Amino acid sequence: MLRKNAYDLFLSLDDVEKIHESTLRVLKEVGVEFKHEEVLDVFKKHGARVENSIVYLDEDIINNALQTVPKSFELHGRAGFSTISVDGAPVITTAGGPPQLVHEDDSIRDSTLEDVIKFYKLIESSDVIDVTRIVSSDTADLDRNSENLFNPQQALLLKYNTKPVYGTIVNSNHTRGKSIRQGTRDSIQLIKKFYDVWDKNIILTDHCCISPLSVGSEVLENMLAMLDEDQIVQFTVCSMTNLTSPPSIMGTVVQDNATLLAAMVFTQLVKPGTPTIYRTLSAPTDMREVKLAIGSPENTLLGFAGIAMARYYGVPVGSGGGLSDSLTVDYQAGAETMMTLLPTYLGNADFVSHSVGTLGSFNLGSFEKLVLDEEVVSMLKRLYEGIAISDKKDGVDLMLKVGPRGNYLKGRTPKDYREEHYLPKYFNKQGDKLADREKFGTALDRAKKEVQRRVDEYELPETTKKQKEILNEYLPDPYKYDL
Amino acid sequence: MLRKNAYDLFLSLDDVEKIHESTLRVLKEVGVEFKHEEVLDVFKKHGARVENSIVYLDEDIINNALQTVPKSFELHGRAGFSTISVDGAPVITTAGGPPQLVHEDDSIRDSTLEDVIKFYKLIESSDVIDVTRIVSSDTADLDRNSENLFNPQQALLLKYNTKPVYGTIVNSNHTRGKSIRQGTRDSIQLIKKFYDVWDKNIILTDHCCISPLSVGSEVLENMLAMLDEDQIVQFTVCSMTNLTSPPSIMGTVVQDNATLLAAMVFTQLVKPGTPTIYRTLSAPTDMREVKLAIGSPENTLLGFAGIAMARYYGVPVGSGGGLSDSLTVDYQAGAETMMTLLPTYLGNADFVSHSVGTLGSFNLGSFEKLVLDEEVVSMLKRLYEGIAISDKKDGVDLMLKVGPRGNYLKGRTPKDYREEHYLPKYFNKQGDKLADREKFGTALDRAKKEVQRRVDEYELPETTKKQKEILNEYLPDPYKYDL
Repeated sequence: MLRKNAYDLFLSLDDVEKIHESTLRVLKEVGVEFKHEEVLDVFKKHGARVENSIVYLDEDIINNALQTVPKSFELHGRAGFSTISVDGAPVITTAGGPPQLVHEDDSIRDSTLEDVIKFYKLIESSDVIDVTRIVSSDTADLDRNSENLFNPQQALLLKYNTKPVYGTIVNSNHTRGKSIRQGTRDSIQLIKKFYDVWDKNIILTDHCCISPLSVGSEVLENMLAMLDEDQIVQFTVCSMTNLTSPPSIMGTVVQDNATLLAAMVFTQLVKPGTPTIYRTLSAPTDMREVKLAIGSPENTLLGFAGIAMARYYGVPVGSGGGLSDSLTVDYQAGAETMMTLLPTYLGNADFVSHSVGTLGSFNLGSFEKLVLDEEVVSMLKRLYEGIAISDKKDGVDLMLKVGPRGNYLKGRTPKDYREEHYLPKYFNKQGDKLADREKFGTALDRAKKEVQRRVDEYELPETTKKQKEILNEYLPDPYKYDL
Repeated sequence: MLRKNAYDLFLSLDDVEKIHESTLRVLKEVGVEFKHEEVLDVFKKHGARVENSIVYLDEDIINNALQTVPKSFELHGRAGFSTISVDGAPVITTAGGPPQLVHEDDSIRDSTLEDVIKFYKLIESSDVIDVTRIVSSDTADLDRNSENLFNPQQALLLKYNTKPVYGTIVNSNHTRGKSIRQGTRDSIQLIKKFYDVWDKNIILTDHCCISPLSVGSEVLENMLAMLDEDQIVQFTVCSMTNLTSPPSIMGTVVQDNATLLAAMVFTQLVKPGTPTIYRTLSAPTDMREVKLAIGSPENTLLGFAGIAMARYYGVPVGSGGGLSDSLTVDYQAGAETMMTLLPTYLGNADFVSHSVGTLGSFNLGSFEKLVLDEEVVSMLKRLYEGIAISDKKDGVDLMLKVGPRGNYLKGRTPKDYREEHYLPKYFNKQGDKLADREKFGTALDRAKKEVQRRVDEYELPETTKKQKEILNEYLPDPYKYDL
C-alpha cells in the first residue's frame, strides 16, 4: 500500500487551504447558477441568498451540509454490489457515450446496438470493470417512434449485464409527454422492479455541471428524480481552461471546487445523508484548435487537485479515467491512458468512469482499447500495492545461501515472487525479433483475440420469467426474450 | 514544483531504514565480489576484510566513504555542459546498445553505422536530450581489422554530436594488444584531445554490476581507467527477480543497495571526491518465459526504491528510462514508457539513460519512438512542474467579470495559459473522425515526418582543421573528413 497520499505531491495543505479560501470568495461573491425554481426555493428556504437563478453560499451552510455526506455506501447490481468509500479501492466503470467506434480494422464508424451489446459482453466478463453503463446512448438504429427512447436502452443493459449500473442522463428526447424528472424516475423504477429491490442504492448517475459555475435544468431534473428515488448522485465538472474556466490551473480548480460544493450542498439540504460524489473531469483547451485536450498532463494535475480537495472535505471522490485524444489505439493512446489514470490509482480515488475503452477526447470507443486499458489498470493496481517491507521479505537468508554470482532459480516459483509480481495478460513479453512478433502477436493482436474469445464465450445471465416480462415491455424488438 | 518526494509514496523512512539495516547485514555477512586484484588490495589497505575476491564491509567504512561523494558536478561537452545534482532536474540521455532497430516500415533489422549516425542527428537536434552516447555499438559494418574497434565509434560520435558524452564500456574485443584499462584511457584521452579540455569531467560512464553481488573484471578495468582520468563513474545494478536477485521486491532492493554501496565506496577509497552515481535498473523476470520484463510496474517500484535509498545516503541517483518490452511502437510501448519514466520525473532522479528511443527489453531501438518518447518526457516535465498556487493565480477576479455561464475566451491567449499549458508537438489533438485522422496523421505518422525533417535539416557541427585531423586518425574510411 502507498505510504502517503499522492495528491500531497501536487498540493500541500497550505495550497489546499488557499484554494478553499478563494472558493469561499467565489461562492459568496460570484455565486453558482441553478436553472430550476424548485432547487432555488430549497436554497432560499435554508437561508441562502438567491438572485436571478444565482445562489450565493457562505461557509456555515457549506460546512453543515458537508457533514452529512456519507463516507461510504454500496451500489447494488443483480449479482452483487460495489462499495464506494473514502477508505476503499477505486470502483471502476467503462467508457461512456462514444457516438463512434474505432473498429478492429481501424475504421471509424457510428456505434450500433450490436456494438453496445458487444461492449456489455466484454464488461460482464471483465475481472477489472466493477460497474456497467449504457455505453453508447441513442444509437441511430434505435426505434425513434417508441414512446420512451430511454428504457429500451436501460432494458438492454439489464438483459446483458448483472453488474451494478452507472446511470445515464435522461433528456427531453427520451421521454415524450412526460417530464424529464418522471422519465428518470421511470428508468430507475425499471431497475428496482427488475431486481425486485426497493430499499437499496441501485444506480449511481453522473450529473454534469456547466462551466463556469452553473447547473442546467435537464441535469437538475435528473438529480431531483435521483433524490426522489434515494439514489447516488455524482456531480462532475468538465471545464475547459481559458474557455469555460480561467486560464490558470489554480483558477480552474477554484471554479470547479465552487461548482461542485454548491451542487453537493444542495443534495444534503434536500435529503441529508444522500450519497454523493465529488468529481473533476476538467481538462486543458488546446488553444491551437480551441479543442478539448483530455489526454494531457494538465488533466492529470486537475485530477490530483480534485482528489486533494475532496479529501480535505472528507467526501467520496471520483476521477477521470483512462483518457486519450488519439483517434486510434496507438502509442499516444497508451501513454495518455497511463498518465490520466495516475490520479485514480496513485491518488486512490473512490469511483472512476471512462476508465477503459475510450479514445478521441470521449468521441470514440474501442473494444480492443477496453482490453488493453484493463492491462493498464491492473499494472497501476500493482503499483498501488507498493513494496512489501518486513524482516521476512528482506532476502538476506537467501543471499547467504546463494552468495555472489549465484543463482536464485530453483524448484517451484516461490510465494514471494507470485505475491509480488503482476504477470501481464495482453502486453507482449515474448521474443525480440520480427519472427517473434509475428509468432506471439503484438498487444493489439492479442487484444483482438481476447475480444473475440470473450464475445464467443459470453452467455446470457439467468433470468426469471417475470424478469423477462419486465424487460420485454421495453426491449427493442430484435432483442426481446422468447417467452 | 512537487511539494513532496514521490518516493515517499512507496517507502517511508522506517522502510528505508529497515532496508539499510538488512543491507549492512549483507555487506558484513555475504559480501560483494570484486574480480580484480588491485581493487581487492585497495579494500584491504583500508581495513576491509577480503576473502576469495569477496569484500566484507562494515558500517564505518561505508559511512566515511559516502561523505566524500559530491552532490553536484558538471559533465562537459563540446558546446556546453550539463549539471548533475541531487537538487537539480533530471539530465537525460538516449537508448543505448540496441543491436537491432524497428524501422519506419515496422521491419526489424540489424543496426548499421548509418542508423547510428541518424540517431546522432536526432540527438543533436533534440531539445529534450541533454547527453549523447554511442547508440548501437559494434555494428556489423565496422571494420573488424582495425587495431582499435572502439575509437572509430567514439570519433564518429564526436564528429556528429556536440553534446556531452555518456560512455560505453570498452571490452577486450575493442583494444587488441592493449589492456582494457589502457584502451579505456585512450578513448577518454581522445575526447580530451578533441575538446582540448584536460581538467574537466568530459565523460560519464555506466559500470554495470553483475547480480548477485559482484562486479566483473572488465567493468573494473574500465572503472580504474575512469578514475585514472578523473571522470564520472556511475554504477548500475540490473538484477532480475528470482533469477539474479531474491524473489521479493524488498530482497532485490537490499541486494542492489549492497552492491551499489560497495562499488561507490571503492571509488571514494581510491580518490575521495570522485563524482559517482547510484543507479538501479533492476526489473522483474517474467517467469513464464524466464525473460527480463523491463516495462513492468515492479521495475517502476524498484526505480522509486533506488531513488529513496540514494536520497537517504545523499548521493546523486540515476534512473531507468522510458522502457518497454514491446517489439513495435504501439499502445504497449506508450503505456510502459510513461509508467517506467515515472520514477525519473515524479521521483526527480538526477541522471537518466535509455530515456528515449528504446524498445524490446533494450534489444531494439526506434527513431520514431525516440521522437514520441520526447513527447512523453515533456509531458512528465509538465507534470513535475505541478500547479502554480498564488493569490494572483486563483482566477477569482476573472470569475467576477465572466460570471456563471460566461466565456473566458477573448483577445490574446493570456500569460497564465501560456505559462501553465504544455502543447504537444507530435501527439494528435486534432479532429475526431476517420477523415481527420487521415488529414492530421496519427502520432506515429507525425513522428516519421519529424524524424525526416530533423535528418534533412541536420548540419555537421563546425570543427577546426586540427579537430578534423584528430578524428580522422580513427574515423571509419567512408566518414573521414576531406582535408
